Amino acid sequence: MTGACLENADRKEEVSTLNDAPIGIFDSGLGGLTVMKAVMRRLPRESIIYFGDSARGPYGPRDIAEIRGFAVEIARFLEDMGVKIVVVACNSATSAGLLEAQRACRVPVLGVVEPGARGAVQATLNRRIAVIGTRATVRSRSYPRAIRLLDAGARVFSRACPTLVDFVERGEVEGARVEAEVRRYLAPLLGQGVDTIVLGCTHYPLLRGVIAGVAGEGIRLISSDEEVAREVEENLVRRGFLRDHGEPPAHRFLFTGDVDRAKELGRVFLGPEVVEVEKVGLPLRGVRG
Amino acid sequence: MTGACLENADRKEEVSTLNDAPIGIFDSGLGGLTVMKAVMRRLPRESIIYFGDSARGPYGPRDIAEIRGFAVEIARFLEDMGVKIVVVACNSATSAGLLEAQRACRVPVLGVVEPGARGAVQATLNRRIAVIGTRATVRSRSYPRAIRLLDAGARVFSRACPTLVDFVERGEVEGARVEAEVRRYLAPLLGQGVDTIVLGCTHYPLLRGVIAGVAGEGIRLISSDEEVAREVEENLVRRGFLRDHGEPPAHRFLFTGDVDRAKELGRVFLGPEVVEVEKVGLPLRGVRG
Repeated sequence: MTGACLENADRKEEVSTLNDAPIGIFDSGLGGLTVMKAVMRRLPRESIIYFGDSARGPYGPRDIAEIRGFAVEIARFLEDMGVKIVVVACNSATSAGLLEAQRACRVPVLGVVEPGARGAVQATLNRRIAVIGTRATVRSRSYPRAIRLLDAGARVFSRACPTLVDFVERGEVEGARVEAEVRRYLAPLLGQGVDTIVLGCTHYPLLRGVIAGVAGEGIRLISSDEEVAREVEENLVRRGFLRDHGEPPAHRFLFTGDVDRAKELGRVFLGPEVVEVEKVGLPLRGVRG
Repeated sequence: MTGACLENADRKEEVSTLNDAPIGIFDSGLGGLTVMKAVMRRLPRESIIYFGDSARGPYGPRDIAEIRGFAVEIARFLEDMGVKIVVVACNSATSAGLLEAQRACRVPVLGVVEPGARGAVQATLNRRIAVIGTRATVRSRSYPRAIRLLDAGARVFSRACPTLVDFVERGEVEGARVEAEVRRYLAPLLGQGVDTIVLGCTHYPLLRGVIAGVAGEGIRLISSDEEVAREVEENLVRRGFLRDHGEPPAHRFLFTGDVDRAKELGRVFLGPEVVEVEKVGLPLRGVRG
């Protein structure tokens, strides 16, 4: 009981310095930059530390327990850097390790799945929802679970679209080839009469134009990037933790893999804001054991 | 497949008439009127049908399967009256029958637990959350479950406050006696260092002043009434279903029990808007079997 009260008092001291603290966002590579972009659009005054675990990504083919370990390690690393909130901007890492990262950190940790599920449940008219994502995300069934927790009467149709990430990483986000591929993936989902499609992979917002064109009018696209950004804003507003002075925010880009590639492709995902990329060595230093 | 497409086409026809449709809100009695009040504050143009199952309420002491049956029956009854969304404004009915009501209806059905849990997770700074409610709600553990689905690192401390509903139903919402009772209930929760208290019963918003006074500064109170109203608004905005013309809304109050008592107490909960109360006979007619 005394411990609880002391802990509480400590927190209050800490809290007063958190407005100016950055937001931490991480992904297995570059995809999470679409989430960063959405957060910057919604909260242009906030500073962000982006962490891309490109040396070990993509996480998709890896063992769940291994991904979970990475998620906890990186969330703690960001917490030790002083972030006020951590965003797991990666579907595989959210599915594998969000709960453990939440338990391991003192600051709030948000994932991409629940906000995307929530957006879809609120947007659908006929409660028939499609989810597209990587094989790992579709296999984890994390979206159908999260959707049905919010609306037990919703029908969810999932489809893995394994080649789409490659198109994005090659910078091929429009044209006949990618359009044909998107059409092939969406056809059976559209045949099920869905009226809402969740872009369940942080790479897909870059294909939004193609996907919207193939899906046609009347189909709502839900991007987890925008949904998470909304959730980050709600959290910071409620806690009174928005950055409240006018100096321009300072962003940092940390990558565990090739820095030049991260910088080049980072500009495709985010824009010219990716000025300097810092290399972070593995294993991460200074992380509480 | 063809069935799915037809269903979809039917829905589109239906959708165009839904903007002017009312919102359906139900409770085992009067408590849900606090939710109606919050919805009216947030969405003053919307028409509302309130259904109070006062002949069979309170639900708390009843069997879970029985409450579940009532929840499905009333949700369908409201749907058949043409509502565009159903709100289960009762913690017991949400815990017992939300999922079944969602499966049984074509329109969206929202409960009070998830929005309250969500508000608490977003508001807490130290992730130590108290939940107060009726015995049935606390026993169901629906709040701790919903809170930990959103933040696995949150600590939840629950306390049943069985006498508070009686104070409210007597209209005794301030004064030394109710204050002493609230103090007795909150003391052990405050001793656990919580910084957020969820008012997990639709009667408690009427005690907000007393609870806030006893809890003291720095403690955040989360009312499910406001959280649900927010969720209803998000849903209608996203679907494009807000009522969009300027004529004043029309509210209806349906009760299965004593109409005079409902009218008199209804004014305590909601205000002078409770002009006319209609009696509804049991079993409900016209409900799909």
